[in-house]
Amino acid sequence: MKNILIIGCGLLGSSLVRKISKKKISKKIFIYEKSKKNIEKIKKLKLKGTIVKKLKDVIPHTGFIIFCTPMSEYKKIILKINDYLSSDHIITDIGSAKLKSNEIIRKNLKKKICWTSSHPIAGSEVSGPENGKEDLFENKWCVLIKDKKTNIKHLNFLRSFWKKVGSKTVVMNSEKHDKIFSMTSHLPHLIAYNLVKSAQDFEKKQRYNLIKYSAGGLRDFSRIAASNEIMWRDIFFNNKTNVSKAIDVFVKNLHSFKRDIISGNSKSVIKKLTQTKKVRSKIVKLKQDTNKPDFGRN
Amino acid sequence: MKNILIIGCGLLGSSLVRKISKKKISKKIFIYEKSKKNIEKIKKLKLKGTIVKKLKDVIPHTGFIIFCTPMSEYKKIILKINDYLSSDHIITDIGSAKLKSNEIIRKNLKKKICWTSSHPIAGSEVSGPENGKEDLFENKWCVLIKDKKTNIKHLNFLRSFWKKVGSKTVVMNSEKHDKIFSMTSHLPHLIAYNLVKSAQDFEKKQRYNLIKYSAGGLRDFSRIAASNEIMWRDIFFNNKTNVSKAIDVFVKNLHSFKRDIISGNSKSVIKKLTQTKKVRSKIVKLKQDTNKPDFGRN
Repeated sequence: MKNILIIGCGLLGSSLVRKISKKKISKKIFIYEKSKKNIEKIKKLKLKGTIVKKLKDVIPHTGFIIFCTPMSEYKKIILKINDYLSSDHIITDIGSAKLKSNEIIRKNLKKKICWTSSHPIAGSEVSGPENGKEDLFENKWCVLIKDKKTNIKHLNFLRSFWKKVGSKTVVMNSEKHDKIFSMTSHLPHLIAYNLVKSAQDFEKKQRYNLIKYSAGGLRDFSRIAASNEIMWRDIFFNNKTNVSKAIDVFVKNLHSFKRDIISGNSKSVIKKLTQTKKVRSKIVKLKQDTNKPDFGRN
Repeated sequence: MKNILIIGCGLLGSSLVRKISKKKISKKIFIYEKSKKNIEKIKKLKLKGTIVKKLKDVIPHTGFIIFCTPMSEYKKIILKINDYLSSDHIITDIGSAKLKSNEIIRKNLKKKICWTSSHPIAGSEVSGPENGKEDLFENKWCVLIKDKKTNIKHLNFLRSFWKKVGSKTVVMNSEKHDKIFSMTSHLPHLIAYNLVKSAQDFEKKQRYNLIKYSAGGLRDFSRIAASNEIMWRDIFFNNKTNVSKAIDVFVKNLHSFKRDIISGNSKSVIKKLTQTKKVRSKIVKLKQDTNKPDFGRN
C-alpha cells in the first residue's frame, strides 16, 4: 500500500502506527507531531515510523494522509500542506464531529483535492502515544462519511484500510453522523463533565469530602470526565447545534423525572427505570460492552 | 456472636450470608425472603443459612437483625415483628437514604426498641442472590448513622460487625449522609437513567439505531441505568428534597455549559473540562476505582 503519513501521534495516531507496522499495511509510515514531549515519548516507545520535521518534505512521498490531531488544528495544517497536495492523495481524519469540520476543510483545502472523513469509535479517557495500543480498533465501528461530493474510490480505499486495522465499517452522511453521536457520545461526555463539576461545586460549598464516597455512582462518570479537554472542546464546538438540542431533550426529561419524584408518582418512575434497563442488555448483546457486572473491575 | 437474621436475601443480603458463614461471624444465620423465586435460588446456591417462613418464630432466637429489603418494605415488616422485639435486639438496615426511612422507622417501631442504621457503599447493576459474593464489602466504606437518639452500644457493635465483614466504617448523621449521597450516588443514577431515556426517545423519533454506536460514551451510563428499579424508586422518593436540589444545581451548570458552547467561549469550556479531570485522579488515588483505562474492560 501507499506510504502513510500520520499527522498527530497521540492515543489514536500512535495506535494506528502500531497496527499499521505490525500488520505491514504500508511500506513506510511517516509521523508528524508538533509536541516535543510527544516526540520524546514516541522515540522512547520505539514506534516504527519515521518522525518528520517538515510536512512539505514528506507529502510528495506519501499516498495516504491521516489527520489524528484535534479538529481545531485542521485548518492550520491544511494551509501548510495545500501546495504540496495532488488529487491522488487520499486524505482522511478521525474527528468525532463532521458537518462543521467538513465546512472548514471545504473552505481551506485546495480545489480538486479530496478529503474523505472517518470516525473510528475508539477512544479512552487517557491520551498520548504512551497509551496507544495496536488493538485499539479491533472490532470497533468506524464510520465512513459519504456526502454528495465524496470520492467513491477513496471511500472504498478507506473501507478496506479500516478493515485491515481491525474495524467494522459503516457508511453514513455527515448530518446523520453528527445527530447520532450528539446523543451516544457528545451528550454523555458533556453530562459526565457537568456532573463532576456539580459535585465539585457542592463539595466546595458544603466542605464535605465527597470523592471518598464516589463508589456509589460518581466514579463511573469521572472516567469520561477525565478525557482530553482540547479534543472535547472541539467536539462540543463543532457539533453545537445537535449538542444544544440534545441538552434540551435531556433537561426536559430531567424535569419530568423531578416532578414524578416530588409528587411520588411511583407508576411513572417505575416505568422510566424499567424501560432504561433494556438498553443495557441490548448493548451487551451487541457486544458494545462487557457482560460482567461493574465492567468486571472489582 | 449473636444469631443473625437477614431479612431480604438479594444481592447484599446474600453477600452478607456468604461472608458471615465463611468467616463464622455468628453461630446461626436465619434468612427471611418473601420471593419464592429467590428462595429457590438460595436453595440451589446452597447458601449456609436457615430459611425461615415466619419471622415471629425466629425473632426470639435472634440477637441481630439486618434489613436488606428495599426501603419501602420496612414498615410492613416492622409491624409484623414489633410484638416479638425486645430492647436487646440490635437492628440495622442497609438502605441508601436515611432521613425519611428513619422517620418511618420511628413512627412504626415499638417504643424502647433501637434501630441503628448502616449504609454499605457496595452495590451493582445486577441484583438477586445469584449475584452476591462474599467479598462484596471488602475495603468498601460502610456509613454508620449517629443521630441524637442513637444507641452507642449498638453503634459500636455495628462498627465491629462491618469491619469483620471487610468494610471500612465512618460515622455521620442522617442529614449529612443524605446530602452527600444525593450528589455522589443518587444524582448520578438519576442522570444515567435520564440519559438513557433521552437516547431512547431520540432513537424512536429519528429511527436511528443508536445502541450500535454506544461505545462512544452511552454504554458507561447504561450500566447504572440497569440497576434495580424498586430500590432506586425508594431512594429517589426517600431523599427527594436533596435529590431535587442536586437536580437544580446540575441543570444550572448544564445551562452555563450550553451558553459557553453556543457562544464559543473556549476559555470557560477548557476551564470546566480541565477542572473535572482532577476528580478522576483523586478517585483513583483514594482507591475508589481501578486505575486501568476504560475500567480495564477492553
